[in-house]
Amino acid sequence: MKLVVQKFGGSSVRDAGRIRNVAGIIAETYLAGNQVLVVLSAQGDTTDDLIEKAREINPRASRREMDMLLSTGEQISIALCAMALEAMGLPVISLTGWQAGMRTSNTYSDARIKKIDQERIRRELDKNKIVLVAGFQGINRFGDVTTLGRGGSDTSAVALAAAFGADLCQIYTDVDGVYTTDPRVAPNAQKLEEITYDEMLELASQGAQVLHNRSVELAKKYRVNLEVVSSLERKPGTKVKEVVKMEKSSIAGVAKDTSIARIAVVGLEHSPGVAFRVFSLLGKARINVDAIIQSIGRGQSKDISFTLPRSDVEEAVRTLEASKSDLNFDHITVEDKIAKVSIVGAGMMTTPGVAAKMFEALYDANINIQMINTSEIRVSVLIDEQDAAAAVRAVHDKFFGDEG
Amino acid sequence: MKLVVQKFGGSSVRDAGRIRNVAGIIAETYLAGNQVLVVLSAQGDTTDDLIEKAREINPRASRREMDMLLSTGEQISIALCAMALEAMGLPVISLTGWQAGMRTSNTYSDARIKKIDQERIRRELDKNKIVLVAGFQGINRFGDVTTLGRGGSDTSAVALAAAFGADLCQIYTDVDGVYTTDPRVAPNAQKLEEITYDEMLELASQGAQVLHNRSVELAKKYRVNLEVVSSLERKPGTKVKEVVKMEKSSIAGVAKDTSIARIAVVGLEHSPGVAFRVFSLLGKARINVDAIIQSIGRGQSKDISFTLPRSDVEEAVRTLEASKSDLNFDHITVEDKIAKVSIVGAGMMTTPGVAAKMFEALYDANINIQMINTSEIRVSVLIDEQDAAAAVRAVHDKFFGDEG
Repeated sequence: MKLVVQKFGGSSVRDAGRIRNVAGIIAETYLAGNQVLVVLSAQGDTTDDLIEKAREINPRASRREMDMLLSTGEQISIALCAMALEAMGLPVISLTGWQAGMRTSNTYSDARIKKIDQERIRRELDKNKIVLVAGFQGINRFGDVTTLGRGGSDTSAVALAAAFGADLCQIYTDVDGVYTTDPRVAPNAQKLEEITYDEMLELASQGAQVLHNRSVELAKKYRVNLEVVSSLERKPGTKVKEVVKMEKSSIAGVAKDTSIARIAVVGLEHSPGVAFRVFSLLGKARINVDAIIQSIGRGQSKDISFTLPRSDVEEAVRTLEASKSDLNFDHITVEDKIAKVSIVGAGMMTTPGVAAKMFEALYDANINIQMINTSEIRVSVLIDEQDAAAAVRAVHDKFFGDEG
Repeated sequence: MKLVVQKFGGSSVRDAGRIRNVAGIIAETYLAGNQVLVVLSAQGDTTDDLIEKAREINPRASRREMDMLLSTGEQISIALCAMALEAMGLPVISLTGWQAGMRTSNTYSDARIKKIDQERIRRELDKNKIVLVAGFQGINRFGDVTTLGRGGSDTSAVALAAAFGADLCQIYTDVDGVYTTDPRVAPNAQKLEEITYDEMLELASQGAQVLHNRSVELAKKYRVNLEVVSSLERKPGTKVKEVVKMEKSSIAGVAKDTSIARIAVVGLEHSPGVAFRVFSLLGKARINVDAIIQSIGRGQSKDISFTLPRSDVEEAVRTLEASKSDLNFDHITVEDKIAKVSIVGAGMMTTPGVAAKMFEALYDANINIQMINTSEIRVSVLIDEQDAAAAVRAVHDKFFGDEG
């Protein structure tokens, strides 16, 4: 008997009809003779509604109490979905994060899964039950409820698949797989049959919102057999694996991220350890810095720029300003009308001229590149936000269009 | 330092403003130098909304999954209220039923509190924190979430007060105490300064909705110093205790219950054990039967009538019909347009003529009595539902009016 882990996101369970649909997919998998372990997110806007309730009472509520509040969303989903499966006459049990043995670090609102106590889930699977687990949540060593931060339910699903040695981990979403780029931006985007962990990871980090990179990292580490598939249409999704068969194109996709900003710390002292001090301060404030550019020092001063999520800008500026006298800089500038467009592909490093082809596409489209940043399987450019969609179309057409 | 347990019902925490108000009451108690242990219900209509969500998916969902679903309501309340206290700069922690060590029996949806593991709450109180506990819920020996059934949060509060030897247990509601009858029915109803556990118990069982009788039973058993008080107005409430000072009137109050129905099982065999078989069947189906009347047998057959909550009628009829051939009765009749009006008073048994005074009031008001049922400190009559309000006013005026 095979063990299948299935994860359904918030839009897949947003109302009674969608929950029945999800129950149908689970039932089909179970009745085909598999053990089924399911991870669910909170319904539709539930999490946002709860956050709004909290803000109304205390905009600076502690993360512990936020986790206590938000974890109810997934608990509601598992109970309702269990009821839908009960209505079909199937044996099912729902488990919260703590009941499922999801042990996490102590950091509220952004906890890491440390281990999974398998006993309870094993017992229920052995009883031939479909097991529904609340995603996004766990319990720390104080016996307190924690949540896993962004992409938490994907991470819950992959962690469970790894711990229980699942044969397959299916991530159901409202898209039917991973595309060469966002189909809403470039209508000729193509669905990928397969993609490597590394490519998926770069796409996820670069703004493709199909899977969160934490879950892909975990899947890569434990070689979890991952699949991105639609909960709304019954058709093949995209398989994420270690090695994929040769594709015609040298790149897997084009991603855009318009949720970033750039901060420049201007007029820093030109002495050793300055960069270290800046980024250790930001690290302590739990701000995720993306690309970093340091200008070549002129005379006694230099500038350091970095990109980061827009939602972290306020906290980053506060953190830096609080240490202004210590860091000894002149001033800070914030640019948030920017976007990052990236191409990702495992074959890139062995195919000469990939980056040049991207730059040519942007040049032809008359789009100015502010910054370039590369990894072994990715090339990213920073451009004006207003050029983002045009840039994606131009680059995508260059690689995947008739001329590609 | 005194330990005060405070319980706030659903209407007391229904929105952000009400939660702030509740936080103000808690803060005041804490800042006066008390340890404060708080029990909260789900906000306003939250529980009903969740039940509606469940019904839409599966009207016959298992009780286990209903408990999983409904327990989120109280969890939301404690988190939000903790945030309101955090906003006031006070040390506070919220705990779910399982975190608070509320160990219950295994019966889902109607669990009994078996014991309270005190360690976690003690530790938090010792850290000088205000502790907020989710009412209505606990955990059974399978590690599953249970709920306590009707009046559950009152029961949670009284159980905590008993376990921790609280100096005072305050039940905050949207009324400001216990009245001689429902002020909406009889505007001249008077607030009682004090009432005995037994009187409160009879009033609660007879439809006065201030306190659930399970919580009063528990308070009586452990001599918990109980007080019913308004969360909206700062004025004295009603104290519930073992013995109260002599009151002018021989009765404490008049209650009415319009949520009942009467079932008659007609044409039962006139043989021993018939009543036993009927009521053990209903007991197994967890139906709470109130008053029972058995007609004097005529010839070979007899009738048995009983009152029960209207919400249980369907289940009771189904249960009885399923055993029709075994019980060997002719047919069942259901009467649900009835009401029960009761007078309650600890002094009743030592004051002759109390029952007669009640019957006189009903006779003067031209209200027909269908059935009479009495306890040591209570007289109840079954009447037409349409006469209920008039009956309450007539009886209340007789005992508490100018002529009383």
